[in-house]
Amino acid sequence: MPHLTLEYTDNLAPHLAPDILPRLNRALLASSLFAESDLKSRALLLDQWCVGVEAAPRAFAHVRVALLSGRPPGAKRALAEAVLAALADACAPPPGAELQLSVEIVDIDAASYAKEVRNGR
Amino acid sequence: MPHLTLEYTDNLAPHLAPDILPRLNRALLASSLFAESDLKSRALLLDQWCVGVEAAPRAFAHVRVALLSGRPPGAKRALAEAVLAALADACAPPPGAELQLSVEIVDIDAASYAKEVRNGR
Amino acid sequence: MPHLTLEYTDNLAPHLAPDILPRLNRALLASSLFAESDLKSRALLLDQWCVGVEAAPRAFAHVRVALLSGRPPGAKRALAEAVLAALADACAPPPGAELQLSVEIVDIDAASYAKEVRNGR
Repeated sequence: MPHLTLEYTDNLAPHLAPDILPRLNRALLASSLFAESDLKSRALLLDQWCVGVEAAPRAFAHVRVALLSGRPPGAKRALAEAVLAALADACAPPPGAELQLSVEIVDIDAASYAKEVRNGR
Repeated sequence: MPHLTLEYTDNLAPHLAPDILPRLNRALLASSLFAESDLKSRALLLDQWCVGVEAAPRAFAHVRVALLSGRPPGAKRALAEAVLAALADACAPPPGAELQLSVEIVDIDAASYAKEVRNGR
Repeated sequence: MPHLTLEYTDNLAPHLAPDILPRLNRALLASSLFAESDLKSRALLLDQWCVGVEAAPRAFAHVRVALLSGRPPGAKRALAEAVLAALADACAPPPGAELQLSVEIVDIDAASYAKEVRNGR
């Protein structure tokens, strides 16, 4: 917790900062809501995708941040805005294309969340 | 919004319509709940999967539609049925296998959803 | 229903039991909450990931179990613990690294869930 997932369309790949995940993690850390080592992020390159039903040039990047339930709505809204700013900063729209960037915040049910940390020798 | 995610087992790949994502987007559009350019869909081919614990020939395709919270239950139910119909229409069970098709509707917290659209030159 | 998704960082791949999905399915089945053929699991190898903002050796595996809404909190908590135990049993931390294992339980809106089973000839 938190778990961040970035999905991006493959036409966006050349326009994405190579260090986008560290950047997004820094945006999460700056919120002061989380411990450093708890930030767990992954990116999924989408090679099968479709926006709308028209043949217009488009792209999208979507971030989902899942955090333990109980945060106030204002903190979640501010977090989404901060992550969106970091995302926008780390990618450019492909030439001639419309790029949609979005961030959603999801509550993880804290009562049933189970976690364990192990250290390899 | 909406975000559609199709996951399908790799043994289903040869039995899937190549234009399945546009078909699913058309089903979403037909609901009149969304603007055309807002429909963002992706498909994930699953190469590591397992159904049950028995060695029976099986396959599955699952669709998750995430939309902003606030839609009435009846609209969500109708949307799931329409997407399931489009899904069933776009894939066939592998010979001898049991194919499970499913559609879930997920609410995105509207209060914390952040979005930005940028146009590439 | 249920849908289980395992995500794991690629540095964990050599340390994961090859039959991890069957093992996780057996843990789900042992809960007596589900029918055998309903257990649908997939694993996603993460090749783009980042933990925290420091350069420490780390890894993570995260399981998400989505089940139809209506289960009591105690049953969900017990399920998460059982799945975490199976997960911990099926992977070892990479030498010198900190491995985070986590399990979340997600409710699927039962009122809008749509499903169909088809048999291939």
